[in-house]
Amino acid sequence: MRDRWSTGRLEAFSDGVFAIAITLLVLELSVPERGFEDLWKGIADQWPSYLAYITSFVTIGGMWMAHHGIFRRLASADGMVMRLNILLLMLVSFLPFPTKLMAEAIDKTTHAERAAVIFYGLVLLAISLVTGALWRYVAAHRDLIEPEVSDDEIRTITALTTPNIGFYVAVVLLAFIAPQVAAFGYLLIAVIALFRQHGDATPGRT
Amino acid sequence: MRDRWSTGRLEAFSDGVFAIAITLLVLELSVPERGFEDLWKGIADQWPSYLAYITSFVTIGGMWMAHHGIFRRLASADGMVMRLNILLLMLVSFLPFPTKLMAEAIDKTTHAERAAVIFYGLVLLAISLVTGALWRYVAAHRDLIEPEVSDDEIRTITALTTPNIGFYVAVVLLAFIAPQVAAFGYLLIAVIALFRQHGDATPGRT
Amino acid sequence: MRDRWSTGRLEAFSDGVFAIAITLLVLELSVPERGFEDLWKGIADQWPSYLAYITSFVTIGGMWMAHHGIFRRLASADGMVMRLNILLLMLVSFLPFPTKLMAEAIDKTTHAERAAVIFYGLVLLAISLVTGALWRYVAAHRDLIEPEVSDDEIRTITALTTPNIGFYVAVVLLAFIAPQVAAFGYLLIAVIALFRQHGDATPGRT
Amino acid sequence: MRDRWSTGRLEAFSDGVFAIAITLLVLELSVPERGFEDLWKGIADQWPSYLAYITSFVTIGGMWMAHHGIFRRLASADGMVMRLNILLLMLVSFLPFPTKLMAEAIDKTTHAERAAVIFYGLVLLAISLVTGALWRYVAAHRDLIEPEVSDDEIRTITALTTPNIGFYVAVVLLAFIAPQVAAFGYLLIAVIALFRQHGDATPGRT
Repeated sequence: MRDRWSTGRLEAFSDGVFAIAITLLVLELSVPERGFEDLWKGIADQWPSYLAYITSFVTIGGMWMAHHGIFRRLASADGMVMRLNILLLMLVSFLPFPTKLMAEAIDKTTHAERAAVIFYGLVLLAISLVTGALWRYVAAHRDLIEPEVSDDEIRTITALTTPNIGFYVAVVLLAFIAPQVAAFGYLLIAVIALFRQHGDATPGRT
Repeated sequence: MRDRWSTGRLEAFSDGVFAIAITLLVLELSVPERGFEDLWKGIADQWPSYLAYITSFVTIGGMWMAHHGIFRRLASADGMVMRLNILLLMLVSFLPFPTKLMAEAIDKTTHAERAAVIFYGLVLLAISLVTGALWRYVAAHRDLIEPEVSDDEIRTITALTTPNIGFYVAVVLLAFIAPQVAAFGYLLIAVIALFRQHGDATPGRT
Repeated sequence: MRDRWSTGRLEAFSDGVFAIAITLLVLELSVPERGFEDLWKGIADQWPSYLAYITSFVTIGGMWMAHHGIFRRLASADGMVMRLNILLLMLVSFLPFPTKLMAEAIDKTTHAERAAVIFYGLVLLAISLVTGALWRYVAAHRDLIEPEVSDDEIRTITALTTPNIGFYVAVVLLAFIAPQVAAFGYLLIAVIALFRQHGDATPGRT
Repeated sequence: MRDRWSTGRLEAFSDGVFAIAITLLVLELSVPERGFEDLWKGIADQWPSYLAYITSFVTIGGMWMAHHGIFRRLASADGMVMRLNILLLMLVSFLPFPTKLMAEAIDKTTHAERAAVIFYGLVLLAISLVTGALWRYVAAHRDLIEPEVSDDEIRTITALTTPNIGFYVAVVLLAFIAPQVAAFGYLLIAVIALFRQHGDATPGRT
């Protein structure tokens, strides 16, 4: 018999990690290098930091919504769900680091920009792949899912988690040619993902 | 049909972000520049840091209370509420950065003070505007609100979220002339907001 | 009629702040100044940092237990409870700063030690005073307390929250003469407080 | 009569500390020392940081699962459980510090490597010992455990928490001879622990 975990504390722990990762992003923002001489100019020069901050924030926000969408359909978790979830949280927690690298590399040299923007994109791609794997595993184990979730609903979620993977591959490839454009591409993907997330008609479920 | 999200995990995630943003503020406090030679003098010289710490703490505390006031009246959230909430959390999480800028700029040069105090105020203004927009959106969609919330109660909350916007505009304008006075003005607004928040007569509701 | 707040989200938010403040303490620990030449010696030389870390950790842990002890006896909170709680959280969140100062000042000069150890103690004293005020306010408003809490139990909690205030005054005074001894005194108070906290016979209540 | 604490807020507080400690690990990752000249090479040179990050993340993840496994079998906590739990949380919160030391010491000198890898292992050993002590204390006080937990199940958990102690002793000893191999040994122990954790057949319990 497969072992089971209830999802309550798992969700609470995951929410904690998402909330902390998203809030730690601000620690990468520092006083402009030029100091307080011309603060407005200094703040304006920091645009890559703000771009990276907003992109990572919206990305983690959307991923939290996707995570929420998966877990509220779960009746219980098994060991594999626990482990895929820890892998997912590890990648999400890691994101502030490539965020910092990208923020500092943009507007340095094209070489640095390219490396940092690709590295950032690969982490986002990995997060999308693990999220997709987590959902596919759950979808393939009908006994883990709440009985009132319909097959249609399962297909809808599968359709939601898939395209990001393609988008991230495309933007990472774009980063080889035009890293700054690719950096804005990540933001675009994140904003679109935020608008594509949706709840369902039975909000009382969890 | 509009999609729906239950508010339980949304509140838990938001609480996490508010709690972390408010607690990260202390990381900006550092050993006095003059070191340990004359520690009391060094601690006293850091008054702008304490002012900024207290102002941001009380402001976030009051905003958490306002957020709590909105969400406990929600029966469920739709996609727009989710997105406005993420925008609000993004601005709240961002606040430690202008807090640090303001703490370091005060008592440097008047130019730096002015820029930093205005920048800080604009972020507070943005938070007030998004909070106001979130509530107005909810108030305009009666089906999102718990049925036992009366129209009177809705009007009271609307009246509570509105005036801060005017106060922040006034203090930001004041910052052009007297930035240090404006810095204390933000604290005053935050303390008043904390005293204006109030619960209701049906505490068992959430 | 007095306004009321349910205590659920208030406890969740407070737990978040306590948990973050207690966990941020580790960020003050850094690679020993002497670097990696003789790491064991470097680690041993950092004893003031470990003392400060353990003292603040045990102190915040005990304060969380005291906070938990107060709030699980509350039926609901009013505006005054909300505000005293935010003041308490502000002081608890602030504690990592005097912790860092004390850790760095010990073993520098006696003057620096004295200032830092007194400053640290004053913050602990302030936390004890606000905790005491919060409980006394609650105890004086019987309608805020769960009906099954007996007068005896109320007196017991009052007796528990009082003596720390005297201890902290005594140790702060001691710090004028022997700051290093006083630093260990704070640890002793925290450990004793941890052992004096106790639950009750009706654990199912919350 | 023994005093009792309900486990709800205790779990929430512990989850918070685990979630924050696991997420703070990323703050130790910094821009490669060689800067942005050859970023890929710089990122590759940081392998000890990634090893330390992953090891600590998986270790804390597994410890959280073990903690969850203990607490969902508890009917209530007494003062001793509270204090052992605070000691456990103190050690878990401390882990980012030896993680940072180990990440920076590897590939410096063999002497530094050895000291840092042993120090890291001793902290992991201490965490295992306290987790084991916490479970043994609970197992010896049958009235703290949910009545439906069988003696068999208690023995299974005891068997789960024991072997890590032996593994950590072995790897710490190995670190005297081959510190880099030992560093990978910690990762191996953590990954195995993650796969050995398992839920039970009554997931609805918590």
